[in-house]
Amino acid sequence: MPGLIIAPRARIFHGHEWVYATEVKKTFGDPQPGDVITLKDFRDRPMGTAIYNPASQIVARRFSRRRQDLDLDFFTRRISQALLLRQTAGVDERLCRLVWSESDGLPGVIVDRYGDHLVLQTLTLAMDMRKDLIRDALVAVIEPKSILLRNDSPVRKAEGMEPLIEIIHGENPGPFTVRANDLDFEVDLFDGQKTGLYLDQLQSHAEVAKFAKGKRVLDCFTNQGGFALACAKAGAAKVTAVDISASACDATRRNAELNGLEIEVIEHNVFDFLKHATPDYDLIILDPPSFTRNKKTLMDAMRGYKEIHLRSLKLLDKGGIMASFCCSHHASRELFVENIVDASVDAKKALRLLANHGQRPDHPVVLSIPETEYLKGVTVEVMAGR
Amino acid sequence: MPGLIIAPRARIFHGHEWVYATEVKKTFGDPQPGDVITLKDFRDRPMGTAIYNPASQIVARRFSRRRQDLDLDFFTRRISQALLLRQTAGVDERLCRLVWSESDGLPGVIVDRYGDHLVLQTLTLAMDMRKDLIRDALVAVIEPKSILLRNDSPVRKAEGMEPLIEIIHGENPGPFTVRANDLDFEVDLFDGQKTGLYLDQLQSHAEVAKFAKGKRVLDCFTNQGGFALACAKAGAAKVTAVDISASACDATRRNAELNGLEIEVIEHNVFDFLKHATPDYDLIILDPPSFTRNKKTLMDAMRGYKEIHLRSLKLLDKGGIMASFCCSHHASRELFVENIVDASVDAKKALRLLANHGQRPDHPVVLSIPETEYLKGVTVEVMAGR
Repeated sequence: MPGLIIAPRARIFHGHEWVYATEVKKTFGDPQPGDVITLKDFRDRPMGTAIYNPASQIVARRFSRRRQDLDLDFFTRRISQALLLRQTAGVDERLCRLVWSESDGLPGVIVDRYGDHLVLQTLTLAMDMRKDLIRDALVAVIEPKSILLRNDSPVRKAEGMEPLIEIIHGENPGPFTVRANDLDFEVDLFDGQKTGLYLDQLQSHAEVAKFAKGKRVLDCFTNQGGFALACAKAGAAKVTAVDISASACDATRRNAELNGLEIEVIEHNVFDFLKHATPDYDLIILDPPSFTRNKKTLMDAMRGYKEIHLRSLKLLDKGGIMASFCCSHHASRELFVENIVDASVDAKKALRLLANHGQRPDHPVVLSIPETEYLKGVTVEVMAGR
Repeated sequence: MPGLIIAPRARIFHGHEWVYATEVKKTFGDPQPGDVITLKDFRDRPMGTAIYNPASQIVARRFSRRRQDLDLDFFTRRISQALLLRQTAGVDERLCRLVWSESDGLPGVIVDRYGDHLVLQTLTLAMDMRKDLIRDALVAVIEPKSILLRNDSPVRKAEGMEPLIEIIHGENPGPFTVRANDLDFEVDLFDGQKTGLYLDQLQSHAEVAKFAKGKRVLDCFTNQGGFALACAKAGAAKVTAVDISASACDATRRNAELNGLEIEVIEHNVFDFLKHATPDYDLIILDPPSFTRNKKTLMDAMRGYKEIHLRSLKLLDKGGIMASFCCSHHASRELFVENIVDASVDAKKALRLLANHGQRPDHPVVLSIPETEYLKGVTVEVMAGR
């Protein structure tokens, strides 16, 4: 098997599974793009098996610490293990991220499950080349009615691959509804944004809704209305949802109707909306899209966060609640909380933590791969009596 | 009102509520130890009201951002707010920390509730001098059968106060049982270690027990058996509990008997036990007492953690689970997780995060006072297929 000799002090010696181009000491055996390769340390000791793509900054991603082929048996085993994890982690195994890349030992493979229908993404070259094997393994383990290959993620560019959307098993089911948090959501896997629903936030929707009873709720960046609907269902006095996207507002309105819930939907830029809003809210939810995709723009993103945090806190009275989320792994939880504290000092309000939020267990964090931890959130309360 | 002028850049300008001796620019009006004082910034603008103790490193602790006296009405209001928070936070309001110092706007006042019986601690001089008012407010709001003043905490030394234990309302109820996580625990508020039970960990006991069904569980530093009992109740195949303290082992045995549960209790040093144990466990729990009380000994403490993490991970097979806790606020969550990652690299095992743990909501974190966040824990799984 061809392979790489890894330079000393590379991150793979600290538990990571990636090899950057700058961490390669020597290439041997002429590996080709998409090949399965061997990794060795600088004393020629084997370190496991990886997939190879010299066109990516991350030239190798280890998927086993032993010698291992990418065959049907391997994919079947890993997918079965991933299914077992969801079954034991307390998430709905029929509506979940079934396979999540490195966290399930399948770098670049993402599978979302919507009941009998699966959405597959193959984001690394080696996995893309083996998508038929992955499909066969999914059919064997899950027996789905359809599998949609939805390879329109921009991260494929980094691996030198073109976008592609096609049905690779069964037929297009068209739009259908799924149930989460006792709510119905309309999904259309062919036309929906991303892959139908933001599955990683379903748990947070429920956690924040616990604080919503009797409250006047403002859900900013509502997208498909996940937080807004959960709060309305939990007995909020009034729910207002804001999003700049017309299609997001439409989706929220349709989902509200589908569930017989009343939600005021406003198509507006959230920054502007918060600037001119009157202080008529008891619970403000901020779940923006990632303001940053890299370290360079992190400080800009933090300024954006500071602004929405400050404006929200100014709108809240004592006892008021703010739930805020950040889905960029570049911003650590510490940095994010610091941002909220800074805003609270400017707003002259002391905040008490009511809840920490994170990824749903179907997006598992691997401790030694910091990139697998991206979603963080807090629910805080403006302290009374100050 | 006498007071202090605070030097620029003191932490109180960044949302904190404490003033260190080194942060005082000027003292005015001759404040006496235990007095209620005014804080002003260096431009003479009022910053709120604090309690004063020149014998402590923390000379002032702000409890209001306005002008405020420490009278019965104030204590009654703050205690009522604290009770309301527990009622809405989803903890058992009859078995909880009812008042927790700065987090409830009462610096140095701690009240634990065991049904009809309260345990009060007054850890700052000003609050100690007003313990009769605090007692009267507690009687008015809670109507307890007894209040025990249990002032034996070593932190009182920093405020120049002597230890004192006495009944200040009602009569000593003697030993009685309380119910938590569907389990009975024997408490003796007069003789029990700390204040009866570790209330801050009751939620973590339940969270870890979710993973215990059918597992062979090892509970290290078991104390009164909280984790061990919750796991046994949740259907663990076998539970072993280890503690170096004979009285802790006795308490665990009594609690096991009280609940009709079988637990093997071993009186032993945990470090030694882990060193010589055979790999017969599927779930290992590490909840040690604080290895450090200050920043100086932090690195020693981290070495201790590394050792128990490494030894535990070596005992676990693929799919095995470790739950580890750290109750020192000096060790950040990041440092603690890094310690576990280091141990996993040495043990040649990849870990997946199953759950994050923190303080029960009756020990609320104030975001701008980092000292209020001390308890952190993670449950991790040794990844299969590597």
